[in-house]
Amino acid sequence: MSADTPHIDRPEPRLHEPRGYKRVATEEAFLPNELYELYVRLIERGSVPDPGFQSLIGYYLMSGSERARNVSERLRDLGERRLADMDAAGIDMQILGLTSPGVQVLPKADAISLASLANDQLSEAVRKYPTRFVGLAAIAPQDPERAAQEIERGVRKLGLRGVIVNSHTQGEYLDAPKYAPIFAAAEALNVPLYLHPNTPSPQMIQPFLEAGLDGAIYGFGVETGLHALRIITSGVLDRYPRLKLVLGHLGEALPFWMYRLDYMHRGTVTSRRYDFMKPLQKPISAYLRENIFVTTSGMAWQPAISFCQATLGMDHVLYAMDYPYQYVPDEVRAQDELPLGAADKRKFFQSNAEHVFGIRA
Amino acid sequence: MSADTPHIDRPEPRLHEPRGYKRVATEEAFLPNELYELYVRLIERGSVPDPGFQSLIGYYLMSGSERARNVSERLRDLGERRLADMDAAGIDMQILGLTSPGVQVLPKADAISLASLANDQLSEAVRKYPTRFVGLAAIAPQDPERAAQEIERGVRKLGLRGVIVNSHTQGEYLDAPKYAPIFAAAEALNVPLYLHPNTPSPQMIQPFLEAGLDGAIYGFGVETGLHALRIITSGVLDRYPRLKLVLGHLGEALPFWMYRLDYMHRGTVTSRRYDFMKPLQKPISAYLRENIFVTTSGMAWQPAISFCQATLGMDHVLYAMDYPYQYVPDEVRAQDELPLGAADKRKFFQSNAEHVFGIRA
Repeated sequence: MSADTPHIDRPEPRLHEPRGYKRVATEEAFLPNELYELYVRLIERGSVPDPGFQSLIGYYLMSGSERARNVSERLRDLGERRLADMDAAGIDMQILGLTSPGVQVLPKADAISLASLANDQLSEAVRKYPTRFVGLAAIAPQDPERAAQEIERGVRKLGLRGVIVNSHTQGEYLDAPKYAPIFAAAEALNVPLYLHPNTPSPQMIQPFLEAGLDGAIYGFGVETGLHALRIITSGVLDRYPRLKLVLGHLGEALPFWMYRLDYMHRGTVTSRRYDFMKPLQKPISAYLRENIFVTTSGMAWQPAISFCQATLGMDHVLYAMDYPYQYVPDEVRAQDELPLGAADKRKFFQSNAEHVFGIRA
Repeated sequence: MSADTPHIDRPEPRLHEPRGYKRVATEEAFLPNELYELYVRLIERGSVPDPGFQSLIGYYLMSGSERARNVSERLRDLGERRLADMDAAGIDMQILGLTSPGVQVLPKADAISLASLANDQLSEAVRKYPTRFVGLAAIAPQDPERAAQEIERGVRKLGLRGVIVNSHTQGEYLDAPKYAPIFAAAEALNVPLYLHPNTPSPQMIQPFLEAGLDGAIYGFGVETGLHALRIITSGVLDRYPRLKLVLGHLGEALPFWMYRLDYMHRGTVTSRRYDFMKPLQKPISAYLRENIFVTTSGMAWQPAISFCQATLGMDHVLYAMDYPYQYVPDEVRAQDELPLGAADKRKFFQSNAEHVFGIRA
């Protein structure tokens, strides 16, 4: 099937089949019109010094290709069009996050106010459709204290159920000590932090960009895998041991690397190759199996899903669609047919999400 | 067990067990003393403008840690010490390549002469121990025409059975059109090109290096996965369809990404996101399954090995140890116990290597 157009060959309602589980899609994106319009102005001015922003947003919001137009229009709908797509594909509930790169490319003051606006709009949609939408709080890491306050406002006042960070913030990663308030707030409120991809940071994008590999095809996974590893190896999960991190795209390949990560981390720390790389309380694989939850966004492929279920555990792999970037109803059916018993199928589509995000589907 | 010291708890000879296969280790490294001495001078002078070289070679050849000393000494032995290690671990045959970064960091004239010297030394060792060693030709991509001639000399005159390239050459990747003679020579002589890791290129290393993740723990895999993808997406394997590429570390995670690579490549090409990204004759997964062979260097882990065997095919996964970087006899035993029938076990340890490199073990 084409990657460019969603195919809905059997649009009959699929919500009420006696299948024994609801389908909760856990990495679904939206974009407020106000931020869309600001992105357009920023692209036209060329004023964001991040080649990945120009590449990603220039493509999806301004290229006018059929794929890009589909995505751009659907991103900005939190109502009937989105619900109709969910119905047609058999998605009971979406867990929604502000699309990449969110407010993280903006100057601090704009970022703070647009994160707040996005959270207000999202919580309004959740109140309107409480059985269909769950929201994650957008934050401006540019101001870590304010970001922590926004997490608290989002969870306590707005009813949001997690935090989304779209990888690097103007080339900076969350392992820097100044970002500690963000982790502290998420852990204290017992909500997960979804570390979503962005294009590789400006310090590393060139060899990806010049080959057309900076986006979801490969650069996203590298950027976000690196970011998650930096969080782990810097000791964040020793300092916040109850923190839950969610990674899309089946963990950005970190589960595949688990054995090598353990071996090489042990050797590197023991031999003191880097002064700043300190021993951790556990092997890297233990953090992957305990603190990390992975979703199947963009990876509707049985061999890789089964591999992650076998190596991380059945409780750590959650269904996701990646709407509207990968709106492919056939992929829902492919995942309905995963070789799982009824209880594990329900974990995969529903109850793992209920536990991780603290919701009822 | 420790990552720092090789453990040989049962040093009895293991070569002549009636196990039904020989163990051919396919990604094993050596370093001529002449190049070692040049590296030391270059590090002391700080004259190579590649932070990855300083990090990698500074550590392994000059840090003096137990792990580094073990590696440095064993790299430079092509005789009794290496053979004793092979005997103790039960390795019948090593396929040897010039260790990373080889001559690729050197000025062109030095690179050409040291590649030639390395190949002469290696072929001498192969002549001396023809049942224990097979060699891959080192080349200086800095001069693509001379590199092609050196491949021909290595294969026809010296009896070498493949080519090794240690990823980027001073920040450049093999998809650049000027490197075509290298692929043409390897295809014409029917020998594989082993694309071995190096630290990330200077254009992308910073976010890895500042976190201590530039080496084998993660940066190697990203650098080499990116490099292989650039070769594929630029159409090299359409132009040289019989070319065999070997990737270590179970394909640098590209098998894990296979589904997403296909989906996103199709979408990117169809929507013409990049002018220069042209359609390929086949989906990316087809090149991975047909032209790419992966070895288990550093990845002695059943779940990941079985995943690659299931998704690439039983003929495309080869045993490797990564001596002397990962000299862990227990890992040999772990791979002896892979859940494979006798015929597939023999493919894994022996006959796939015989076919790919055109040898008799």
